[in-house]
Amino acid sequence: MKILITSGGTFEKIDSVRKITNMASGRLGALIADEFAKCGESSPQIFYVCGESAIKPTASGVDIIEISSVKDLLYELTVLFEKHKFDAVIHAMAVSDYTVQKVIQPDGTGYESSEITSENLRENKISSELDELIIVMKKTPKIIRMIKTVQPDTVLVGFKLLSGVTDDELRLAGYNLLVKNNCDFVLANDLTQIEGANHRGLLIAPDSNYTSFSTKQEIACGIVSSVLKSIQN
Amino acid sequence: MKILITSGGTFEKIDSVRKITNMASGRLGALIADEFAKCGESSPQIFYVCGESAIKPTASGVDIIEISSVKDLLYELTVLFEKHKFDAVIHAMAVSDYTVQKVIQPDGTGYESSEITSENLRENKISSELDELIIVMKKTPKIIRMIKTVQPDTVLVGFKLLSGVTDDELRLAGYNLLVKNNCDFVLANDLTQIEGANHRGLLIAPDSNYTSFSTKQEIACGIVSSVLKSIQN
Repeated sequence: MKILITSGGTFEKIDSVRKITNMASGRLGALIADEFAKCGESSPQIFYVCGESAIKPTASGVDIIEISSVKDLLYELTVLFEKHKFDAVIHAMAVSDYTVQKVIQPDGTGYESSEITSENLRENKISSELDELIIVMKKTPKIIRMIKTVQPDTVLVGFKLLSGVTDDELRLAGYNLLVKNNCDFVLANDLTQIEGANHRGLLIAPDSNYTSFSTKQEIACGIVSSVLKSIQN
Repeated sequence: MKILITSGGTFEKIDSVRKITNMASGRLGALIADEFAKCGESSPQIFYVCGESAIKPTASGVDIIEISSVKDLLYELTVLFEKHKFDAVIHAMAVSDYTVQKVIQPDGTGYESSEITSENLRENKISSELDELIIVMKKTPKIIRMIKTVQPDTVLVGFKLLSGVTDDELRLAGYNLLVKNNCDFVLANDLTQIEGANHRGLLIAPDSNYTSFSTKQEIACGIVSSVLKSIQN
């Protein structure tokens, strides 16, 4: 059995020291990896693709692949999908929806993000003395969209994070993500209902039924048992 | 003896989940705190103000204060400076030079960053479906500038990070920072000369003489011994 888990957040560079990221810690992804590692009988091979500063699983034997940007993520997943056929993909990573397109200084000069390379670091550390700075961001491709296209038989779990919505809205948004990306399950959660280990989450199935959890550990166990059942079917 | 160390990096919110930060890990600040903690005789009281995800000192008894934004940092330092008279301030934190002023969506709508509060989280998670997004950033006040104004007798160590410059440029930039902010020492370093524990740094004194170090541990020891000598004078 081969399981792929993505976890933590991506980073998009503004210049050689500044970056845009998100609040994802990777804690839930690490718990899910640890839960899968407990499935002794099926001895799963677990791959954990995570953002640089993400929390790592404590279980031994997990293959850990660190990435930084959305571009890196796409590359590493492509490599993995070429080498392995995954029984399940748990896509828990908070992938940046936007990447830096260009940076514009008050005098109108600036640079495209593609110019930020290790060779020209010097030109691309923005001065700390400008009054204002404009960052133009463009949409990144949806990584989740390609997973079932490339590996149609995998059990895919997607994640939807919203902030301060009603339960109906949360379920609807989760279900829409499931349909759009051909997921087998979607974990829908609300930022305002997450604090430390307490973490409310709804695991939505394709028939739009759902199970509700109230801690990160419960979510991890719920996802693993649902995925294992789907794999066995 | 009372020592204040700032370490790690600040975070500036774009919305309820996205933020702008920098590459600062806090590793050097933590080493400096641990070096000060070894000064058994003078039994220093150490305060460590750091970004949320910064590496913490391993020494026991260090007062740790976590902050997020430049605004938080300014507030916590003001509180500390009111309560304590510091023998030295080691300002190693990478403070964001810019904060988010407003976010503009392709249809021209948007919001000011001051509108991002816990009460209106919902309105302020940017949709992931926009083609483009513009972030306007404005300059933050220089925190280092206020330190000697408020505590003129403290020994102040500033930090200057550049990227891919010559040694002359590095020394000059470090010295300029020292003069401008009335520092007793400035540690000038270049991003391209930092990799893991290897970390080239020049500790510049007010007479413009400097000492060169080549690892984080050497820098920490060098700063602590120079500061202790200055305090005793």
